[in-house]
Amino acid sequence: MRGAVMHAPGDVRVEDRPDPVILEPTDAIIRLSATCICGSDLWSYRGIEAVQGPAPMGHEYVGIVEEVGAAVASIKPGQFVIGSFFASDNTCEICRAGYQSSCIHRELVGAIGTQAEFARIPLADGTLVATPEPPPADLIPSYLAASDVLGTGWFGAAAAEVGPGKTVVVVGDGAVGLLSVLAARQLGAERIIIMSRHEQRQKLAVDFGATDIVTERGDEGIAAVKELTNGLGAHSVIEAVGTRESMLQAIGACRPGGHIGYVGVTHGELPGDVLFFSHVHLHGGPAPVRRFLPELIDLISNRTIDPGKVFDLALPLAAAAEGYRAMDERRAIKTLLQV
Amino acid sequence: MRGAVMHAPGDVRVEDRPDPVILEPTDAIIRLSATCICGSDLWSYRGIEAVQGPAPMGHEYVGIVEEVGAAVASIKPGQFVIGSFFASDNTCEICRAGYQSSCIHRELVGAIGTQAEFARIPLADGTLVATPEPPPADLIPSYLAASDVLGTGWFGAAAAEVGPGKTVVVVGDGAVGLLSVLAARQLGAERIIIMSRHEQRQKLAVDFGATDIVTERGDEGIAAVKELTNGLGAHSVIEAVGTRESMLQAIGACRPGGHIGYVGVTHGELPGDVLFFSHVHLHGGPAPVRRFLPELIDLISNRTIDPGKVFDLALPLAAAAEGYRAMDERRAIKTLLQV
Repeated sequence: MRGAVMHAPGDVRVEDRPDPVILEPTDAIIRLSATCICGSDLWSYRGIEAVQGPAPMGHEYVGIVEEVGAAVASIKPGQFVIGSFFASDNTCEICRAGYQSSCIHRELVGAIGTQAEFARIPLADGTLVATPEPPPADLIPSYLAASDVLGTGWFGAAAAEVGPGKTVVVVGDGAVGLLSVLAARQLGAERIIIMSRHEQRQKLAVDFGATDIVTERGDEGIAAVKELTNGLGAHSVIEAVGTRESMLQAIGACRPGGHIGYVGVTHGELPGDVLFFSHVHLHGGPAPVRRFLPELIDLISNRTIDPGKVFDLALPLAAAAEGYRAMDERRAIKTLLQV
Repeated sequence: MRGAVMHAPGDVRVEDRPDPVILEPTDAIIRLSATCICGSDLWSYRGIEAVQGPAPMGHEYVGIVEEVGAAVASIKPGQFVIGSFFASDNTCEICRAGYQSSCIHRELVGAIGTQAEFARIPLADGTLVATPEPPPADLIPSYLAASDVLGTGWFGAAAAEVGPGKTVVVVGDGAVGLLSVLAARQLGAERIIIMSRHEQRQKLAVDFGATDIVTERGDEGIAAVKELTNGLGAHSVIEAVGTRESMLQAIGACRPGGHIGYVGVTHGELPGDVLFFSHVHLHGGPAPVRRFLPELIDLISNRTIDPGKVFDLALPLAAAAEGYRAMDERRAIKTLLQV
């Protein structure tokens, strides 16, 4: 099969890779309907994280089940399925508490590489969720978004305890930030402030439900949020970048007793005293997307939400390298790869 | 009046200080019944934090109201009152959300110095809570504990979402750690693990409700907690020390999706990636003791709890210097100063 492989920072090639086979009786093999490039793939593309040898890329996926292992009971060949970047058994105590991405048996799908024609998905029964029937083509981008960026944005909003009557700040206007705006709207937020200085992203944020835009960053950005919130800061802040600077911006924008949901892998150190005196609640980590998939599938299938709009570039899998470049240069918010 | 003043690290003297007077119409003057020395006073005593000039010391207090300003409505002369280390209006949006220690009008009582015969308490109506009647002498240590260490331990337990059926770890066997054991017991925890290697403190922890003792620290301590919790870590962890090491121990001892309540002023930086992948909830800061005072006063007045046992040394105010030495050398858990 063909699949995307990163050889070095900036060097992604689509080449022949071995067809995946069932390794464990709990595995499934899926034929990808679509896949995509993640903001987190850019950490290694930009050389900020080390590239480990030639690395198969991709951890977002939707597709048709081709084959299942002998121990797979609920997932069947022919189903259209969605899964997340951590495979999980969905039965352990941690999964049952809603933290499938910390499942005691979790496996990283990123190591498998779903920017490809086929993929082996471990722990299929616990990981994959099937749609009631194979969806029309126009819904595939939205289901694909649910695989990571929508599920991650949703977790950010849930971790930030977004709800009716609340004012929410979103730090970060990437795909996750934009879809956390959509999540905040669905969860009933009264006011949603997006921190963004890119016109096209601001527009999409407003489409998804943002009510206010703050273009300033750092201390000026914090001051602008304070001005919009009676001097107090927001009830809920979603941090969707993952740098020390963005985290400090999130802490500064949140009121004492407020909640920060953070979903960008946090790079760098956080000053303990700033956190202490901020009085915020902090929760986040790798999103347990599996927790939200059934609800997200419902909202997509009945066309309540349209998260697929976050893909502003669609390319054939063979053109993955251009997809990476477009995202790296911020010409595209998120690239869908047609398989 | 006489009061304790820190001149330099290790140099605390009881000397003449001006009698406090009403400065604002919202002030009250109280005659201290008892006061005490806080673990946080040791940061400057040990030279870890700078001593700002000769500094009046103390921020814990119970006493009889001597005089109130013209705008004070609910607090009356003759009442026995308890307050906390931040004065608060108790009416702003932040106070009403339960974060009185981040009140928009808060004032630091520590700047006033309550290790003295009298003290001026700002925002008396919002800060002070009166007991139904002046208490018998044997309850005074418990009410004094409510002023900070009990209220702080209680906040730690509340921030860690302690509740029925939960396993709780307490990091730190100082007065706050020990009283967070008591709080966890009151809040219905099923199992309470104290991390302590001091026999006398272990005994008091068991008295307060601890069910297990872990004497190891760092990675070994984390491994010991994991062994006691089916490999998963605790549901709730209370961090009552305030160093990077203790925070990492707390994070390591907490299960994914669990809650850490941290109440020691956090010194140093926290690694963002460790926090991110731990999947914990983190909440803490300067305890909003005022939120809990009415409930704590009830529990003390009907003798359900006896937090005053945390004072294992009582000295006259004149001997404050010896009280500091005893705590610094860990000969005493907490020193009560009789006024």
